[in-house]
Amino acid sequence: MNVFREIRELKEFLKSERVRAAKERKFPKTGLVPTMGFLHEGHASLLRRARQENDIVVLSIFVNPIQFGPNEDFERYPRDEEKDLSLAEREGVDVVFLPSVEDMYPQPTATKIRVEGLTDRLCGASRPGHFDGVTTVVGKLLHIVQPTNAYFGQKDAQQAAVIAQMVQDLNFDAVIVPCPIIRESDGLALSSRNVYLNPDERKAALVLSRSLLELEAKVEAGENIKAGDARRTLVQSIHAEPLAVIDYVEIVHFPGLKPVEEIENIKDAKGPVLIALAVKFGTTRLIDNVILTKKGEALHV
Amino acid sequence: MNVFREIRELKEFLKSERVRAAKERKFPKTGLVPTMGFLHEGHASLLRRARQENDIVVLSIFVNPIQFGPNEDFERYPRDEEKDLSLAEREGVDVVFLPSVEDMYPQPTATKIRVEGLTDRLCGASRPGHFDGVTTVVGKLLHIVQPTNAYFGQKDAQQAAVIAQMVQDLNFDAVIVPCPIIRESDGLALSSRNVYLNPDERKAALVLSRSLLELEAKVEAGENIKAGDARRTLVQSIHAEPLAVIDYVEIVHFPGLKPVEEIENIKDAKGPVLIALAVKFGTTRLIDNVILTKKGEALHV
Repeated sequence: MNVFREIRELKEFLKSERVRAAKERKFPKTGLVPTMGFLHEGHASLLRRARQENDIVVLSIFVNPIQFGPNEDFERYPRDEEKDLSLAEREGVDVVFLPSVEDMYPQPTATKIRVEGLTDRLCGASRPGHFDGVTTVVGKLLHIVQPTNAYFGQKDAQQAAVIAQMVQDLNFDAVIVPCPIIRESDGLALSSRNVYLNPDERKAALVLSRSLLELEAKVEAGENIKAGDARRTLVQSIHAEPLAVIDYVEIVHFPGLKPVEEIENIKDAKGPVLIALAVKFGTTRLIDNVILTKKGEALHV
Repeated sequence: MNVFREIRELKEFLKSERVRAAKERKFPKTGLVPTMGFLHEGHASLLRRARQENDIVVLSIFVNPIQFGPNEDFERYPRDEEKDLSLAEREGVDVVFLPSVEDMYPQPTATKIRVEGLTDRLCGASRPGHFDGVTTVVGKLLHIVQPTNAYFGQKDAQQAAVIAQMVQDLNFDAVIVPCPIIRESDGLALSSRNVYLNPDERKAALVLSRSLLELEAKVEAGENIKAGDARRTLVQSIHAEPLAVIDYVEIVHFPGLKPVEEIENIKDAKGPVLIALAVKFGTTRLIDNVILTKKGEALHV
């Protein structure tokens, strides 16, 4: 496993690998898994998928300052390089890319990539500028690595939709591969930020997956549930948990993120439906979601 | 010479050329010359430079709607595909890429690339949104063609500076090559828009190059000319031409585009100085500039 801390080193390595392969008439596929580190089984699932589908697997670990707001957790975002490297090794990663902030932003970037519309709602409404930071850094990483495929977890469903829109609009030469949420055995969606939760908050946070999976089960069992009613039920069950402070609960079409009409039965909605929420427990903001698709319907971001 | 009208066709062609070359252990350099067509000797000079420095030369011709304002000349922008193709043939172009608006923008793009700061002044102040349209389409073309080098004329000095900033900030894997202005024998800077000028306006427009080149000659002869005085002299000599209506006359550092202090001698300014202007003759807006560098000083955008 190669570990590179400079853009220049990584680019030279990838170039020489590709030239070497081409001389043997091979054209290796490269899979990129962009992360902010503090890796968990969610990330591991992306790495395994990338390992299956590519010849070269690149894991990037970069806590990207420009996607954090001024009052967010950039400084305290959890980091554990040693553990990350051993997880990467275990998952058969070929290259770990660990750039410094100075190398990624030698001066404050004057250039931003911005996706309009999709970024106005859900997390975009709560975190102004967040998605501009995400699309900009993902654009940079796609240029540096030039992957065949890039893997993103569906826990950040809006992020996956925004990045897919960017890639389509700007003709990036990479396939965006969304991957399912991975949960703890009790249902909590894996997140690097779960480490912030104290034991009471950790227990309280189960209300999110419980409420979402209950609703999912009902819709999948064929129940007629109007979007407005579903949303009110979710809000009520989360409010019943005293430690939970709701940021948003939304029921929207996916990947367009337009709200499903209040009076529309979720199971009759055209195309996939994203039920997404963001809830604070103490100072920790968690997100979770389910995406409901008709039987046999493929999910595309 | 290959002519492609679809992104998909062009990408397939370039991929197969690159794979074919790699099998012979060759790694061809690709030069991209992005234009809006109605080609003149200025474009021809870019194509010749690209021809010298690359194995595959791609000329793109695309009148990009999103870089025109609502009251600008998108609809009437001059087009002459037949003449363009014969100029391309003459200059040894390998591939002409002539995409349709529908192929480049199958839906209105939700994604924009935006360079802050550099785009606020000069043409950016007169044409709000113009440079966002330019950087977005250039980003798309860089992704589609994946060139080694991309060539831009210095007549659009601000555009060259903005694109160089974008490429640096977003780690695009292409070298931006700025190329000198080409002028008619009487001094008028070549532009596809010169065709709009009636004979009187065409004659009046010579005031631009005459004023700029006079100032350049004085500074190069070692005269002490303060930026404020130089600007006033330029404005006066252009005002003396009754058909000329000034949009802006600016003396700025290059490529940062910050104004040179009024009281600073131009020849003592640190780094290159751009003297740029935009002037309307009837309904036609022309731009022109000179970039002053110290002897032996290289010019970088």
